[in-house]
Amino acid sequence: MEECILPVKDTGLRGVDVASSKICDVQGKEGKLVYRGFLIEDLAQNASFEEVCFLLLYERLPKKQELEDFSQSLKLKRKVPENIFSFLKTLPFDMNPMDVLQATTPLLLQNDPGVGKPEIENVLFSAENIIAGIATITAAWDRIRNKKKVILPDNDLNHAANFLYMLNGEKPDDEMIRFFDTSLVLHAEHSFNASTFTARQVASTRAHIYAAISAAIGSLSGALHGGANVRVMEMLKEIGSVEKIDAYINDILNSGGLIMGLGHAVYQTDDPRAIIIAPMSKRMGQIANQPLWYELSWKLEKKGKAAFKAKKQREIFSNVDFYSASLFYAMGIATDLFSPIFAVSRVSGWAAHVIEEQFAMTAPKPTLYRPGAEYVGNYCGPDECVYTDMDDR
Amino acid sequence: MEECILPVKDTGLRGVDVASSKICDVQGKEGKLVYRGFLIEDLAQNASFEEVCFLLLYERLPKKQELEDFSQSLKLKRKVPENIFSFLKTLPFDMNPMDVLQATTPLLLQNDPGVGKPEIENVLFSAENIIAGIATITAAWDRIRNKKKVILPDNDLNHAANFLYMLNGEKPDDEMIRFFDTSLVLHAEHSFNASTFTARQVASTRAHIYAAISAAIGSLSGALHGGANVRVMEMLKEIGSVEKIDAYINDILNSGGLIMGLGHAVYQTDDPRAIIIAPMSKRMGQIANQPLWYELSWKLEKKGKAAFKAKKQREIFSNVDFYSASLFYAMGIATDLFSPIFAVSRVSGWAAHVIEEQFAMTAPKPTLYRPGAEYVGNYCGPDECVYTDMDDR
Repeated sequence: MEECILPVKDTGLRGVDVASSKICDVQGKEGKLVYRGFLIEDLAQNASFEEVCFLLLYERLPKKQELEDFSQSLKLKRKVPENIFSFLKTLPFDMNPMDVLQATTPLLLQNDPGVGKPEIENVLFSAENIIAGIATITAAWDRIRNKKKVILPDNDLNHAANFLYMLNGEKPDDEMIRFFDTSLVLHAEHSFNASTFTARQVASTRAHIYAAISAAIGSLSGALHGGANVRVMEMLKEIGSVEKIDAYINDILNSGGLIMGLGHAVYQTDDPRAIIIAPMSKRMGQIANQPLWYELSWKLEKKGKAAFKAKKQREIFSNVDFYSASLFYAMGIATDLFSPIFAVSRVSGWAAHVIEEQFAMTAPKPTLYRPGAEYVGNYCGPDECVYTDMDDR
Repeated sequence: MEECILPVKDTGLRGVDVASSKICDVQGKEGKLVYRGFLIEDLAQNASFEEVCFLLLYERLPKKQELEDFSQSLKLKRKVPENIFSFLKTLPFDMNPMDVLQATTPLLLQNDPGVGKPEIENVLFSAENIIAGIATITAAWDRIRNKKKVILPDNDLNHAANFLYMLNGEKPDDEMIRFFDTSLVLHAEHSFNASTFTARQVASTRAHIYAAISAAIGSLSGALHGGANVRVMEMLKEIGSVEKIDAYINDILNSGGLIMGLGHAVYQTDDPRAIIIAPMSKRMGQIANQPLWYELSWKLEKKGKAAFKAKKQREIFSNVDFYSASLFYAMGIATDLFSPIFAVSRVSGWAAHVIEEQFAMTAPKPTLYRPGAEYVGNYCGPDECVYTDMDDR
């Protein structure tokens, strides 16, 4: 292993395979995203979020009765412990929803009788409890901070529809439900991104899944990770009109900056999720009578790509955040809920990774993540510093 | 970097240097532990926990006035937001203190006006706020779950003494304060262990320090990490008397099990912290009129080492958990507070690592941890699975 020490250091482990996994494949060159053997296009076209959750957790698509049972089981877990609501009401209204979500996720274990038990059935129960609970808390917090009445879940609705209902207090129409459901499918999983790696790492200590997923939410809250589509939206607002796109791109290129939502750590072509989400953003903009954001987006994409090619001799591609921003915005969702909604979806992938980390039998049993670091010492030497009397310092 | 991919996979990154760091050196072969250039023996002998916090955060020992200011600043942050107490009172009394701590850490940001701001001064303020706040919450939760009145902090006392006071409701004597203070010094930092790596990873996404430290607490809650001294205590209770030690060791060796607290992932000799903590455990046992636990410990260590050498032809060494268990127990601390107390101390190291991750200028700017994984595909192939009608499954 010795020869690996130098090239890995301070690279953020970019390109280093730390584990084997059956959950997800991201083929950056080809622009392929695969959940457990299924291409994302196939799932986005056909599967509901509940179906994708089942696929991620159970490694195969559900039969009809299994999906009904699974959906029913999620519904039974939508009601979160009452003290979470009463607690949310004591928080300052400007508290960031991601902080609220990280803090409240461990509290969901209050209605989980098998938490911490080593059997996989218990962890699957917990996974469902968190998938259902996080959606309820996210919607409830948005109601509470806006001084609105909390809306209790409606079990006639599927996961996507119920979330929008709990958020807005009215039942969304079928097209909006479908778009939101597809968004949840698209964001559900993306291999070893930072938050997923955090979840796996916490799980590797044999901490329970609530601890792992709360930690992952903390990771997702970082500006370099979950916050990207918020910054896309801020950028679109800053540009504000089609006429200003050229000047904006010019400024960015001259200052060495980036166009938010163009470029991705892994994809070297258009993010397949961006291709799926773009027409949804367009249609949603029409429905909401806000066509500007989509129009800005696609013109910015087209012109931005051309400008990068001309000026920098390199190609740049749109990622999922580039169009999810305008989609969610047209749905009337507050921008600081974009990351929590990312979590509402990604929790399914995190849960699958926690389970793989703790139970995978095909791969060599994963071991606690415990890397090293090169110690570079202090001003007085690597270990020659001597405690001196306080008056002599 | 290609040649690194295979040997790193599924090893938990053991032995792989992922970063350079100025904070801590663990020399496993020599049994040396170094905080910022200072040997642990020197610090344990001379420095208070507050002084070590300053050293870890500011990279040098404080001058007299600096230490006074720093201690005062910590004291001002001991009072946590009132809604945390009222919330704790709504929790089920059997909720694990580590879950409570992970959930409440993000709530400490309520009295932090600079949270999320990019200047290092703000993060240092936050670090103090968390160091002070976690101690208060840990003690308060233990009081609340035992249906006792919460004890507010006493600013005449130092950090160690105040913690014991808030926990027990009476001022501890000087010897106990010194032992507890030294324990905090010994547990403050240990390089890239699992929880610290979690904190750094969350910090690498540019999430704030509350998110990173809450995540680290989740990591520490795992049985393979923070829970070790709890299991040492359970083992000591199971053995129960000196006469049963030989039979216990025999059973362990024959069943291929481990003696808890003997053996460490890094040290190949006695853990220097165990050497420092053992006589404290002995003395505390005498004071508390409970000499049994120390006696069991050192006899088990002696006999266990000899038996391993004879039967397995390998040496085995005591680690810090081996004697901290009997020390904390003799102090009258509940076993499920051992890990939270670990957190009360280690929070100082985590904070130093978060700051290094986000502000280090000597090392190459650290980058978001985003490793890869080898995708091993699903039963229907790597990406050839096809969505079929639900009735055909």
